[in-house]
Amino acid sequence: MNAPASRADDRLVHVPLGERAYDILIGSGMIGRAGVEINARLRGRRAAIITDEHVEPLYLAQLMDSLQTDGIEAVSLTLPAGEKTKSMDGLAAATDTVLAARIERNDAVIALGGGVVGDLAGFAAGIVRRGVRFIQIPTSLLAQVDSSVGGKTGINTRHGKNLLGVFHQPDLVLADTAVLDSLSPREFRAGYAEVVKYGLIDKPYFFRWLENNWKKVFEGGPERIEAIAISCQAKADVVVEDERETGRRALLNLGHTFGHALEAATEYDSSRLVHGEGVAIGMVLAHQFSARLNLASPDDAQRVAAHLSEVGLPTKISDIEGSLPPTQMLMDAIAQDKKVKSGKLTFILTRGIGQSFVADDVPASEVLRFLEEMR
Amino acid sequence: MNAPASRADDRLVHVPLGERAYDILIGSGMIGRAGVEINARLRGRRAAIITDEHVEPLYLAQLMDSLQTDGIEAVSLTLPAGEKTKSMDGLAAATDTVLAARIERNDAVIALGGGVVGDLAGFAAGIVRRGVRFIQIPTSLLAQVDSSVGGKTGINTRHGKNLLGVFHQPDLVLADTAVLDSLSPREFRAGYAEVVKYGLIDKPYFFRWLENNWKKVFEGGPERIEAIAISCQAKADVVVEDERETGRRALLNLGHTFGHALEAATEYDSSRLVHGEGVAIGMVLAHQFSARLNLASPDDAQRVAAHLSEVGLPTKISDIEGSLPPTQMLMDAIAQDKKVKSGKLTFILTRGIGQSFVADDVPASEVLRFLEEMR
Repeated sequence: MNAPASRADDRLVHVPLGERAYDILIGSGMIGRAGVEINARLRGRRAAIITDEHVEPLYLAQLMDSLQTDGIEAVSLTLPAGEKTKSMDGLAAATDTVLAARIERNDAVIALGGGVVGDLAGFAAGIVRRGVRFIQIPTSLLAQVDSSVGGKTGINTRHGKNLLGVFHQPDLVLADTAVLDSLSPREFRAGYAEVVKYGLIDKPYFFRWLENNWKKVFEGGPERIEAIAISCQAKADVVVEDERETGRRALLNLGHTFGHALEAATEYDSSRLVHGEGVAIGMVLAHQFSARLNLASPDDAQRVAAHLSEVGLPTKISDIEGSLPPTQMLMDAIAQDKKVKSGKLTFILTRGIGQSFVADDVPASEVLRFLEEMR
Repeated sequence: MNAPASRADDRLVHVPLGERAYDILIGSGMIGRAGVEINARLRGRRAAIITDEHVEPLYLAQLMDSLQTDGIEAVSLTLPAGEKTKSMDGLAAATDTVLAARIERNDAVIALGGGVVGDLAGFAAGIVRRGVRFIQIPTSLLAQVDSSVGGKTGINTRHGKNLLGVFHQPDLVLADTAVLDSLSPREFRAGYAEVVKYGLIDKPYFFRWLENNWKKVFEGGPERIEAIAISCQAKADVVVEDERETGRRALLNLGHTFGHALEAATEYDSSRLVHGEGVAIGMVLAHQFSARLNLASPDDAQRVAAHLSEVGLPTKISDIEGSLPPTQMLMDAIAQDKKVKSGKLTFILTRGIGQSFVADDVPASEVLRFLEEMR
């Protein structure tokens, strides 16, 4: 047995989804303890690891060692890094590896990587034998606080992103906070935008705590673990209330409607804008738009922008390098993302820091005029 | 609105699966009333129909007419007939059609065809936008009494049959009993084997009723509707008790362990053996094997064989034309189908007509010896 590398600062978030309940373990050195933690919870003796070419050289050997030491037979598949892997071909490759490894219902598929690997491996786990166990080992901050929790899986098609997939909850999430040291500052910041989002949705005290402690979160240590644990708990709370996204789960889209439109406007060119950056700008816009609708104080929008700007995130449309398409095209992207019903949009608005709500009657014309002014 | 063609003899089976509850409507001329029946239950305005090249010329126009008359916009995709369509490529084609038709969560995918089309279209419906509505319009007797009810969907891979799929319950099943007149006698008989199965599992009175009324079931009329309704109700009862097949649902495999082995032994060559014929022989073998284990009377096995033989189904291994592989290879197929644990197999055995049960400790050596003698 591997001796746990460190435990005192570990945090555990339980997601109480009945027979689909699972634990999220957050701590430093978690990959080296993966075998122990998996053995403590699941029965299977085999695992198929899906990873990508960026993550493999950094952590695959360590994970395989840990599994082997604890008697779990594992094979692995390394896929190209990037969104293009979330395709029918990627899914066929992943499921073929899982089936060739004779993974049965009680064995596991393990996702070792960021959101792309997690979404793809989770989809594979959800359809092999109509569902086998699934373990998330997210290696980006974004994946640790967002995509690894909640059970959404999927791939992209020529008709749009994430249009094929299943809801398949993981059986265990192991978030190793030490691996985040290998992220580029830009990638860490992008994930941090989603951390801030949980404060802005309904936790004003968490947003205040982040304003005071964000440097320690970036540097590592107990504050990083704390911030990730609070984020996972926040996401878990929403997922438990609304597993299949019929209502409250929509709050998680705060900043995402504007953000997705900006991602589309930059043609998903990550040298110009990554997802978390789009969300950062989108969250500021959502607060500004709420102020414009007299729902919130302009000071709140200012405070959100100040914090995001302090950590180095973009906060306005003009922060994006290069030219953008006409505003009407941004609106089209928004309309495609959220169905427009008789000229009305569903939007996440706010009454102030930590007071977000779902509004389903926002006039598209108001959004268009607002965007025109914000450019 | 289309006027219902006939209703007096219609039967409705409700499947009470909580928020996944649905109705199975059984009656003559149901395809011509599809638009009315769908409108009475579901809200969506669009549908994507998946069918195959055998069924399309017979019923697609009629279905499209009925949908159009009732204001449901529909597109269709015709796939090659046969098991080969249950592939990743088939799934990609089906999901692409569904997405191109802009099917949203409240719209529907409609399967118009037999088990292959149902399994594939159901899988597509289960993964587009993580699940859209699904309507089964089964056109074979086998699909009407078995595969269209219960929510199992899937495709085949090079590692085996049905290894990829999801549980995705239909929102409505429309079984048009008149279309069964276009089946070949052999195909009708093969589906009938599964009807008999429900009697043998736990409905001795139904088996007796079939012995007395089978000719009317084959000829059509109210007895056919009745037999299909009882079969759907029987399957629904088992599914409601055990949706994800962790226990009692295994009873539905009566005759299937031997049957699958024989299908594999004939290399799935349908000119030699189709699924229902394998099940017919398998059910007789299961009763004979139970008699051999002193669990049931040999008279029961004789009675089962007599009825199946009377309708024209094969009842013994030697009824299969051509040579078969050595018995040990049949055993290997059985072992692959059902996991062998320390030389023990899980098998559906019986204490007599309508008294089947799950036995999980059947010695593989006993099965081997029995099969040697039965050839």
